[in-house]
Amino acid sequence: MKNGSSWEAGSASKVVDELRSLADARAVGARLPSTRDLQHQLGVGPVTVQRALARLVTEGVLVTRPGAGTFVAARRTARVGDTDWQQVALGASPVSASGIDVLLANVNSTGFQLGTGYLDAGLRADSRLAAAAARAVRRPDAWGTPPMAGVPELRSWFGREIGADPDQVLITSAAQSALSAVFRALLPAGSPVLCAVPTYPGALAVARSAGLVPVPVPTDADGIRPELLERALAATSARLLFLQPTFANPDGGVLAHARRREVLGICERAGAFILEDDYARWLGHGQVPPPPLWRDDDQGRVITVCSLTKILAPSLRIGAIVARGPVMSRLAAMRQVDDFLVPAPLQHTAVEMVTGPGWSAQQRAVSAALRARMGTLTAALAAELPECSFENPRGGISLWLRLPRGTDDLAVASWAARLGVVVMSGRYYVVGEQDASYLRLCVAGIREADIPAAVALLAEAVRAGAGTGTDLPPHRAMTG
Amino acid sequence: MKNGSSWEAGSASKVVDELRSLADARAVGARLPSTRDLQHQLGVGPVTVQRALARLVTEGVLVTRPGAGTFVAARRTARVGDTDWQQVALGASPVSASGIDVLLANVNSTGFQLGTGYLDAGLRADSRLAAAAARAVRRPDAWGTPPMAGVPELRSWFGREIGADPDQVLITSAAQSALSAVFRALLPAGSPVLCAVPTYPGALAVARSAGLVPVPVPTDADGIRPELLERALAATSARLLFLQPTFANPDGGVLAHARRREVLGICERAGAFILEDDYARWLGHGQVPPPPLWRDDDQGRVITVCSLTKILAPSLRIGAIVARGPVMSRLAAMRQVDDFLVPAPLQHTAVEMVTGPGWSAQQRAVSAALRARMGTLTAALAAELPECSFENPRGGISLWLRLPRGTDDLAVASWAARLGVVVMSGRYYVVGEQDASYLRLCVAGIREADIPAAVALLAEAVRAGAGTGTDLPPHRAMTG
Repeated sequence: MKNGSSWEAGSASKVVDELRSLADARAVGARLPSTRDLQHQLGVGPVTVQRALARLVTEGVLVTRPGAGTFVAARRTARVGDTDWQQVALGASPVSASGIDVLLANVNSTGFQLGTGYLDAGLRADSRLAAAAARAVRRPDAWGTPPMAGVPELRSWFGREIGADPDQVLITSAAQSALSAVFRALLPAGSPVLCAVPTYPGALAVARSAGLVPVPVPTDADGIRPELLERALAATSARLLFLQPTFANPDGGVLAHARRREVLGICERAGAFILEDDYARWLGHGQVPPPPLWRDDDQGRVITVCSLTKILAPSLRIGAIVARGPVMSRLAAMRQVDDFLVPAPLQHTAVEMVTGPGWSAQQRAVSAALRARMGTLTAALAAELPECSFENPRGGISLWLRLPRGTDDLAVASWAARLGVVVMSGRYYVVGEQDASYLRLCVAGIREADIPAAVALLAEAVRAGAGTGTDLPPHRAMTG
Repeated sequence: MKNGSSWEAGSASKVVDELRSLADARAVGARLPSTRDLQHQLGVGPVTVQRALARLVTEGVLVTRPGAGTFVAARRTARVGDTDWQQVALGASPVSASGIDVLLANVNSTGFQLGTGYLDAGLRADSRLAAAAARAVRRPDAWGTPPMAGVPELRSWFGREIGADPDQVLITSAAQSALSAVFRALLPAGSPVLCAVPTYPGALAVARSAGLVPVPVPTDADGIRPELLERALAATSARLLFLQPTFANPDGGVLAHARRREVLGICERAGAFILEDDYARWLGHGQVPPPPLWRDDDQGRVITVCSLTKILAPSLRIGAIVARGPVMSRLAAMRQVDDFLVPAPLQHTAVEMVTGPGWSAQQRAVSAALRARMGTLTAALAAELPECSFENPRGGISLWLRLPRGTDDLAVASWAARLGVVVMSGRYYVVGEQDASYLRLCVAGIREADIPAAVALLAEAVRAGAGTGTDLPPHRAMTG
């Protein structure tokens, strides 16, 4: 314990601080309580109070008017200071938005929405979510600390969907934080990470911002090309492959059945993990989607990430990491360090949604809408933009549109925006260079009835953008 | 567009995949729909269906019983595979829990709770939160995408509390993700970061897990020691100081007024940022807390982080980063990459809480409870453990108890746990070595009436742990 004198000293400076706070909390010119009131309030003697007041007067924090009392002195108004020093201290930024800044800015753009990956309000499960949440937030355990790995019912549910045991499931705040945790937990800064391209900018953003170096592995109509994967692993000794085997973003492709075991075998021989981003598990177009790659693996080779935000709503930020083997404890540790826990109210809302009747209804509604929208989009593109080409998406929300030679994707995207159509430039989905320019078109956020008009305007933009590119293949370095 | 033949091929393999998924989704022995039904369902001709069925029979996925139909074949049950390869691929872990694993495990420990920083259920704002949330989740904009930087009303409120403009506020998922974003946005892996010690393990965890190297700067009764800060900056060229100027965790100390400008001046001369963790802004013991260090700075020197989880509830994961100057856009970019957005329902719940009458009531209730609990704790410690010493906390939730020479903190903590008292070993709050062993005692989660009994048991544990340490100063390397 402190000895008496140091306690007195501490107490005195404490009184000074408290009086100063009292002054800070009051308007300039406000009157302070009487000395007697202050003694009572602070539980100290008159001498201590007087000494403290005197010190604050000398500091210019207070002014005394004889007979009237003690008042808050006028404050020196803070100058707007010079912050240029920050640029020296900060240096080059380790953060790489990789296009998600554009993606997120697009979300709230007006006009025909072919740019966002989030469902339009009409297709979201808002009212069902509101009802589920209204119950969830009143649970006795709603606001405390849920189990660190997640609410058991939710872990079991994700496990059943993916084909895993509950203890192989870690609940996360949607997919973005899950991808971030996996990349940073598995690879030290400077490591290469293989990405089947074209790919999702959000994954490139977390990888680059963690100091990792994405290495492209091209895909064809059957998904990632095994011979090039083998070569990339040999060339880089990478320990992680990022893959979207089911309805890949942006081209809606599926890893062909014949290639699944081949890809697993190649990664096994290289001693590499596969991060399966199963973001579109519930975004099929009516048909049952292929099972997760997870099902073909019994070695802990595949780490699967999934999320409910795409099928339900952007603000239901609930997802999962599914993994087995020693890697699981490392992923759990990283999630704790990142976030501590995922809010219990959102977890219980998710449980209510996916275990209630609303879940299959939502899946049916979204599947039907996506199928209809994609059908209308492909037909309109075939009619309005014969000079462009694409593969029919097998499912999911997006289509990968190849632009005519010599067309710049940024130019077309900005023309389209001016005409009232929001689309994403293809360059954000690419690592390094490609042989052509592309646009990524998304049907999640647009009503079917609006698609023909949107495509007609997009056709205008493509023609306006013709010749904006060079005859040389476009350069696509997106490292910043 | 694809040409006809490749489309046919695609369609055929698509049918195979869909039939396989159909089989995967059914129990072993289940009968598949008739060929005609499948044609109708998949929208393809009889030949395509027959070819697909035949292929899956040869693959062993299906079996045909003449006259009866096609059935799901028995699956090869997945062996539990060998995951040892992972340890080679993973290597040493970059993740450092730094004691937050212990901290979070303590939360749900039974017994007298002197270990958790979260309020006990009786003191939490659960019922008020439930009412606020029930309204928030039914807002038309509850489940969509809120503004990326946060809901405007919430940014304004945090701004008013700290003394910043709304556009200097970034809403985050509580303090942990905020600290993580600041550390990783400002410093590349391998950089030193100065920490006033003893300090909060959660900050050490995010710093170490980002590859940063915490460097200790000792504190005394008036907070961080300026002459040692100056020396540490000179020795390391660090560009960031982590500090809790108000009611520091674990010792409840306050940075003395006289030192505030001195610390700012030292960091200005060194061109370094200050990360002010203002976690205890609303955890005073009745008196008005000193203003945030942010108020004394007009150069963008200070980046302030605060959170509502401590004063309201652990699952209301809402916090803020307050910053000005060029650093703000980098922090905003990192937050987007990490999380995309903070769930709108939680943000609106927070707005309802802090702008409603429940807010001041909650502050009064928590302040009064913490003051009473801390008073009881210090009295009980003085009576039961005269061989230990401590400074009276100026506010906040925790007390830093110095153990008798030659006592091991882990031994005492585990003895205490066996006796039914949860406390944190001091070593998690330290960087490198210190001159003695400590315990961190927290009053957030224990009823005042239970404190005397808890301290009596703790005294037993301290005596049981006497002599468990060596006569040498304890070694405290917590790098893992």
